[in-house]
Order: sequence, then C-alpha cells, then structure tokens
Amino acid sequence: MEFFKVKTVEETFSLIDEMINGIHDTEVRPIKDALHYVLAEPVLASEDVPGFDRSTVDGYAVCAKDTYGSSETMPGFLNVVGEVNMGQEASKPVGRSEAIYVPTGGMIPPGSDAVIMIEHCEDIHGLLNTYKQIAPGENIIKRGEDIKSGAIVLDAGTKLRPQELGALASLGITEVKVYRRLTVGYLSSGDEIVPYETEKLETGQIRDINYLTVAGMLENWNIDCIYGGIVKDDYTQFANQAKQLFDRVDCLILSGGSSVGAKDYTTEVIQSLGNPGVFVHGISIKPGKPTILSVASGKPVIGLPGHPASAMIIFQLFGERILRRLKGEKLTKQPDRVFAKITKNIASAPGRADYIRVSLFEKDGEWWAEPIIGKSGLITTLVKSDGIVEVASVKEGIFQGEYVPVLPTR
Amino acid sequence: MEFFKVKTVEETFSLIDEMINGIHDTEVRPIKDALHYVLAEPVLASEDVPGFDRSTVDGYAVCAKDTYGSSETMPGFLNVVGEVNMGQEASKPVGRSEAIYVPTGGMIPPGSDAVIMIEHCEDIHGLLNTYKQIAPGENIIKRGEDIKSGAIVLDAGTKLRPQELGALASLGITEVKVYRRLTVGYLSSGDEIVPYETEKLETGQIRDINYLTVAGMLENWNIDCIYGGIVKDDYTQFANQAKQLFDRVDCLILSGGSSVGAKDYTTEVIQSLGNPGVFVHGISIKPGKPTILSVASGKPVIGLPGHPASAMIIFQLFGERILRRLKGEKLTKQPDRVFAKITKNIASAPGRADYIRVSLFEKDGEWWAEPIIGKSGLITTLVKSDGIVEVASVKEGIFQGEYVPVLPTR
Repeated sequence: MEFFKVKTVEETFSLIDEMINGIHDTEVRPIKDALHYVLAEPVLASEDVPGFDRSTVDGYAVCAKDTYGSSETMPGFLNVVGEVNMGQEASKPVGRSEAIYVPTGGMIPPGSDAVIMIEHCEDIHGLLNTYKQIAPGENIIKRGEDIKSGAIVLDAGTKLRPQELGALASLGITEVKVYRRLTVGYLSSGDEIVPYETEKLETGQIRDINYLTVAGMLENWNIDCIYGGIVKDDYTQFANQAKQLFDRVDCLILSGGSSVGAKDYTTEVIQSLGNPGVFVHGISIKPGKPTILSVASGKPVIGLPGHPASAMIIFQLFGERILRRLKGEKLTKQPDRVFAKITKNIASAPGRADYIRVSLFEKDGEWWAEPIIGKSGLITTLVKSDGIVEVASVKEGIFQGEYVPVLPTR
Repeated sequence: MEFFKVKTVEETFSLIDEMINGIHDTEVRPIKDALHYVLAEPVLASEDVPGFDRSTVDGYAVCAKDTYGSSETMPGFLNVVGEVNMGQEASKPVGRSEAIYVPTGGMIPPGSDAVIMIEHCEDIHGLLNTYKQIAPGENIIKRGEDIKSGAIVLDAGTKLRPQELGALASLGITEVKVYRRLTVGYLSSGDEIVPYETEKLETGQIRDINYLTVAGMLENWNIDCIYGGIVKDDYTQFANQAKQLFDRVDCLILSGGSSVGAKDYTTEVIQSLGNPGVFVHGISIKPGKPTILSVASGKPVIGLPGHPASAMIIFQLFGERILRRLKGEKLTKQPDRVFAKITKNIASAPGRADYIRVSLFEKDGEWWAEPIIGKSGLITTLVKSDGIVEVASVKEGIFQGEYVPVLPTR
C-alpha cells in the first residue's frame, strides 16, 4: 500500500473535481417527473415567449404620446373604442386619441405601445380620463422578451429546479434528456456495529446509525440507496461483500473502520476494487480526518469516519460534491453555502480546517451562528444543529461577530 | 362580498399563524421511511447513549494522574497489561501505572479515567512511553453523555431531518408517530390558459406553467399534488370544479384570476368553499399584490397571482409557511432565510415590501446577491435566480453592500 499525505480541504475539492466525472447513461423523462434531474443536453427554444405582446396589468392600451402631460389635476382624454378578451386575438387597432381595454395577460392591439393601469385612469361613459403620463413600452412584455426562438434556454449540466420546469413548460417542452438517477451502496464494518433495529444492545455494541443519516441525505439529494449490511473485521468477508455491492451501484460508501485501528482493512478493501484507487487518505479537517476517497473503474468509493457527527459532516462536505459531479451537474456556484455572524471566538490550529456545528438564529435583521459544543460522537449535537461552520485552514481562528460560511444541514 | 384592506407582509404572517392549524391525522412509520415527516408526539430515550464509557480515539486507557509530568523530553512509563477488542466487554481493570489498549469506540476498562492517543505514546515491548500529560475524562464519551434515559430527545412538532433519524436509530427507536403526508390540489383558471403540454399555441393563449413550478415546490416539501385542470372564466363551472377538488385535498391552490380583471370570480369561489373564509385579500408586496388567503372548514385555500414569478415568490413566502403549519411543524426558527450583501442600491416604496430575484455568488469570503432585472412575468428571471431578497416595508430601499435576507429558491 502506498504512503498517502494528509490533504487540505482545498486540495481534496480539487482532487474530487479532477477525479470524478459524470455518468454517461441518459434517459428521456416527462418534465413533470424531472425535478432535480440534470440535463444531458442543452435545451433550445422553438418559439418566442411570450408569443405575442402582452399587458402586465389591467388597463387600457394606448399610444403613450397621447398621455403626455396628463396628471391628477389636468387629465388627458381618450375615446374607449373596444375591449380585448383574455385568450383572444386583438385585431382591432388603437388609433391616436383612442384606448382599448386590456386585462392582465391580454394581447396588446396593433397601434398601441403602452398600457395605462386602471388605477391611473377612469372610464366615464366611454371617455377615458388619464391621470398620469406613461412611457412607450410601459406595462407591456414584448413578444420574445422572455425567451427568443432558437436561444439556449438551459445548458447541459443544469439541475432542474421548479423554476426550470416552469421555463420548459412555457416553451411547450414536455420531455427532456437527463442523466439517470444514481444508486449508492452503503456498507458498514466493525465488530461492534449491529443493525440499527437491534432492540437491546449487548455491552460494547453500537447501532449502525450512520446508515440512517447517510440514507436520509441521499434521499434529500434524490439518490437511491442500497443497504449492504454490516461486515465483521475480516478482510476476506469485507472485500467480498464490498465487491458484490460495488458491482450493483454507481458509488460505494463504507462506514466505520477508517480510523488507525489495528483491524482497519478499509483502505486495502477499497484498493482491491479497482484503479486508479485511493486519491485522498486523510484530510486535515476536524472532525473527519480519517476520510478515504477513491475511484475504481470510474465509480467513486468513499470511506467515512465512524463517528456520527464526523460521518455526516464529511458526507455533506465531500459526498455531496462527489455525487453532484457524478450526476453530471455543472458546478459553477456553491449556493448551498450561506453566511452568518459567529457568536463566539473560535480558536483553530493553523493548517487544519475546523468544522463546527452551529444553530442559526436571526437577530436584528442578521443571521447568527451559535457554536454547539460537544464531542464528534454525540448525535445530539447534530440534532441541535442547523449547519456547519468552516474555519478555514489558513486562519488561526475566528472572532465573535465575524462572518463565516455555513453549510446548512436540512 | 366584504371589503378587504391590503395587508402588510408581517400582518399576513401573523394571520397565517393565527388561522392555520396542523392536521390531526397521524400514522406510525418506520424511521427509514420517515424523512421530513413531523413528529406527532415527543420521543423519550429508553436507554443511555452511549450505553457504556467509550473511547473517542485509538489509544491506551490509563489513570490520567499517571501521565502528569509526561513530555516529549521526559516521558512517563506505564505497563501495558492488555487490550480491549471492539464490541467486547472490557472486564480487566486498569491499575495504577498500568495501561490497556482501546480502539476508537471501544469500551473503557474499569479503573481508567482517560485515554492517551497512540500519537502521544509509544508501546516499546509492553512498556508504554507517554509523551504528553492528559486530563481526567480526556478522549472518553461517558455513558449517557449523549442522551440520558428518560430524557425528551425530540419534541412533538419536530421535522425529521437525517440527523434526527440518526438520533432515533441510536436509541433503538425504529418507528415514530408522525402526521400523515399532505395532499394539495391545484386548479388553474382563465380563458387564455391551456394545458402546459399544448404543442402549438393559438394567438392569445398561455400555457399553464405555474402548475409545474408549484408542483415542483410541493415535491421539494414532500407534499403530493393533484392537478385539477383548467377552468374557463365561468362562475358555476369554476365553483363546482373547485369544490370537487377541495373535498379531496388538505389544501387547495387556485392559480390565476386573482387580479382585478372583470372576469375574476376567484374570491367568490373561495368564499363559497366554507367558513371562516378569506382572511387576506391583497398584500402590500411587489410582485404578488393580488394574493388571496383563506381557510374553509380548517383547510387552507390559496389564490395565487397568475404571473409565474409572482406566483412562485408568493408560494415560497406564504405557501411554504401555511403548509409547514398544516403539517404540524413547530415553527420556532426560520433557518430557510439566509443573508447576503446586495451589489446595487435598490429603491423601494415605503409601506410596501419588495421582493427582488437575485443570483448569489461568493466573493472575498462573503455572499453577494446580484439583483436580476426583469418584469414579474418573465420566467427567465426565475431561472437565473438563486433566491429572493426582501426589502422590508419599513425601509425606503437598501444600499449597496448592505446585508439583506434571502429566501433561497432551490
């Protein structure tokens, strides 16, 4: 086995981006069943949106010029010559000194270049009193102003959120080519680990609780999870079960056993799964140092630390990025990080990134992060937490009131 | 029909909290299928977690006193008298000047009050050289330190996140009593609205794209959605279809038709569904003013504005809160709001809350919100957006560099 140098958090992210590529399998899905899937090809508009000039208000379509000089005290006067109905063509034109009623969303009649809101005029027996001057284009969305025919609406690699589905629907696009859903395998190891359903524990036993947190996070990320059970600290059994599960999934997660313990076979098992193999063995991070990241035959393998809080932090931080890359998502932004002011001074060793669980609260119109004190084995510290604060490895700590990046834990 | 005064955003939230109560139906679910469900009763611990004193590191269980004075240059010396195996009882005690090897997570033997990490000592043929002094309790999690038997672990009204599932699993709790999953009905109205699958639009027609964004947001919130179709602007048909859908769901959403247009029957239809009826008719918010909120026979009814961006903002802001209350969730915090610095000055009318779509980016270790300029009818402004910034109604605007609350749109 090779010798591995402990990596910094930044090095780990760079290595993930370098080593992990998206899957190739795609499928065509109806858009109503495509939430959170990632586009495998760009989507082009086949028509203008909107398809006609529309009013954004209830009002009267006019020539803007005809309202110039209008005010509450000196209204202008226009002749109401008709009405546009919703969903119907506006064929009758608006001439000079004329006005046609248009509801919100209604089509703008020819000849008109603006709509005066009903709040700013009054129809007195067919004579429209205008109390405000309006500019050309006011209260109108022009044909193609939202999306132009032929334009790329969404790039390949875009994750489909509710608003992207709305944009696709507005174009009459009902199906999209996306990368298929991922399946992740989870395997626990350790002589002391027993199934989480175990009612009464023997002395020394620990329930396999990381499975529940990992599976919950995967569900949040719309990824299926296969539970591979628990293997004892026996290399042959461990390697066999890992290989069987690995063959059925897109990514394998091994929980526990990545400490320096005497019975630690995790690294060897991971190396046995294929090449190029382990690319991160240990990260200068607290908690979570004994993390292992690997790629075997294009599939990521993640060796998580056994402590519940460590496992969750590591999986949130690195697991999510690995899986988003594997999904084919183009990662240009990190909108999942947010910022808050810290309530206490926090010391940190230089050269090591510390991740601190915090609860978030609002005070005086700002977000504050309150560190939760507790050992990394304590599940209650996670239950109390709304997020994880990063104390970057270049810093020796953070001061009360400083803004810090927070990874929300939902 | 009664006269309704336009409400402020704050008044609207207060009214929601006053008018909307949780459903009563509960069910018992296995914890592995309970993510995002809300607890209907508190969960008590039936045992201590951990159930025994555990080591948090790989090291040697010792009497802390025996390490006092140890340093790199002046090591202490202890006799290694045994080893604890993972998952097995540590029955052999540690006497004075003795040490027993314990792996991470292993049981602490009697007589020991601290564990010295293997990095800080060296086992030379059974003689342990200690290079650091440690304090009593160091590297040990005491029995019950995480959760004490009989303590309330999770309150009723708690939404189950991955970490709560982990906490339940750690206690051997495999089932929980939760409120059942909600079902929401969605009905569109408007002569111009056609199904979103419509391939070729006639002049004046608009596809029912709000259904896709609303259904996507409901999916994000783990709520089922029944699509009720599109009704024309005809009171009897509208009222009948609304009533039929209303009877099948926990909450009804009506899209479009809540403008001041001549054919606006939405308010009457909503009032016809039952008492106490409409409690918000118009909110001093931009966009989204023509919003209607109602309760009929304990079920919320939401009249959304027709413009896609307005509908989405209103549903994110008020719809989510209504549905979280309906789910039985105890809303003490709002961890869904985050904060960012705004990149531009934004003017706003006092007395009206403005909601501005923004894209979020990181610069110099801080979160910045870049306003996206566009009319509320433009779906592309939503696609570009990562969140919505609130300009509170008490303010006349916000200045570049000011911190603003952001509702993330995922």
